[in-house]
Amino acid sequence: METAEALPTTDATVHGYTSNKAAYLRRLKRIEGQVRGIARMVDDDKYCIDILTQVSAVTKALHAVSLGLLEEHIGHCVVGAANEPDPALRAEGIDAKVKEASDAIGRLLR
Amino acid sequence: METAEALPTTDATVHGYTSNKAAYLRRLKRIEGQVRGIARMVDDDKYCIDILTQVSAVTKALHAVSLGLLEEHIGHCVVGAANEPDPALRAEGIDAKVKEASDAIGRLLR
Amino acid sequence: METAEALPTTDATVHGYTSNKAAYLRRLKRIEGQVRGIARMVDDDKYCIDILTQVSAVTKALHAVSLGLLEEHIGHCVVGAANEPDPALRAEGIDAKVKEASDAIGRLLR
Amino acid sequence: METAEALPTTDATVHGYTSNKAAYLRRLKRIEGQVRGIARMVDDDKYCIDILTQVSAVTKALHAVSLGLLEEHIGHCVVGAANEPDPALRAEGIDAKVKEASDAIGRLLR
Repeated sequence: METAEALPTTDATVHGYTSNKAAYLRRLKRIEGQVRGIARMVDDDKYCIDILTQVSAVTKALHAVSLGLLEEHIGHCVVGAANEPDPALRAEGIDAKVKEASDAIGRLLR
Repeated sequence: METAEALPTTDATVHGYTSNKAAYLRRLKRIEGQVRGIARMVDDDKYCIDILTQVSAVTKALHAVSLGLLEEHIGHCVVGAANEPDPALRAEGIDAKVKEASDAIGRLLR
Repeated sequence: METAEALPTTDATVHGYTSNKAAYLRRLKRIEGQVRGIARMVDDDKYCIDILTQVSAVTKALHAVSLGLLEEHIGHCVVGAANEPDPALRAEGIDAKVKEASDAIGRLLR
Repeated sequence: METAEALPTTDATVHGYTSNKAAYLRRLKRIEGQVRGIARMVDDDKYCIDILTQVSAVTKALHAVSLGLLEEHIGHCVVGAANEPDPALRAEGIDAKVKEASDAIGRLLR
């Protein structure tokens, strides 16, 4: 991977998913391969329904990635905001992080 | 593309999407690039919500591909079955093609 | 039901789902009851996650209704258009019905 | 509503959505009416595509309810767990609440 050297050097850039980074990269690599496989099926004039089945499988795999990222956003970013000691900053931070999560879920549902 | 020589040689293998094949291949190529971009964002420790936004965009692009394929399945495979002259074969063919479409839509909704 | 007398009197008003009308009405009655049950849970201050589980169940039941209606649209309306004897009218009718199906699937996916 | 007297009497039963209870009940009442309207359309032999449009509208309304409940679960239940003073109980509580949220989102996406 060409950007492997851009490792986070400070806590500020460590996100929830960082500890599972390798697993996410593996899953996305596999999804990329699945998309390439679908293109090959189109190129080979495979039956449309068989292509649709593969497209559904990729959509499902992407949903699983989304769900993982959301779970880590909630567990890290929202909970992180809840641990802010200043009460005013805390309330504001929680609201912002919860709103982000909710907007992201809304985009997934649409 | 390595399989470009595998062109359909008889009508039997010409599917509904064949006339739009180049357009489908372009869209899938773009989706493949988007997935690679998401992997790069993970690798660069980008903010999880920004990654989620990209994942939603890919899911939406895949839905558009599915919808196009479904439309062509209905317009070609179902309608093709409806044009079968033998009434018994026709009824059977229609049932099979409609069932395939409905199952594919069900998989997309799940 | 107050509209029970409005039975279709000519073939023109008989849709694909008409033969399963009673089954659709039963399913919708059950879904209506499920929605009422969710309101009762909210009113009783039940745990939000338990309410969400019920909302997902209703969404799934509605998807099943949609899928049934779509299957009948494709099997009756699209196939009906394909049986039109005048070729020009036939092509136009098929295009219109397929477009309707595809738009409806698009709305379900969003 | 027959259960209006069952108001929460202790903090323990006050959930995130309690402050918006009346709004949720109004929305669910409207959804119940929409489902009844769909049954009426089926009973009146309305065109299947028009029925499908209404089913999509109800699905969308239910998604909005789900999104609201999820936002309140994250903002109240997850954040509540993050405010538990005992560190061991806190970590456990956060994990449980985040897992519940993630499972609920997963059910919505399916």
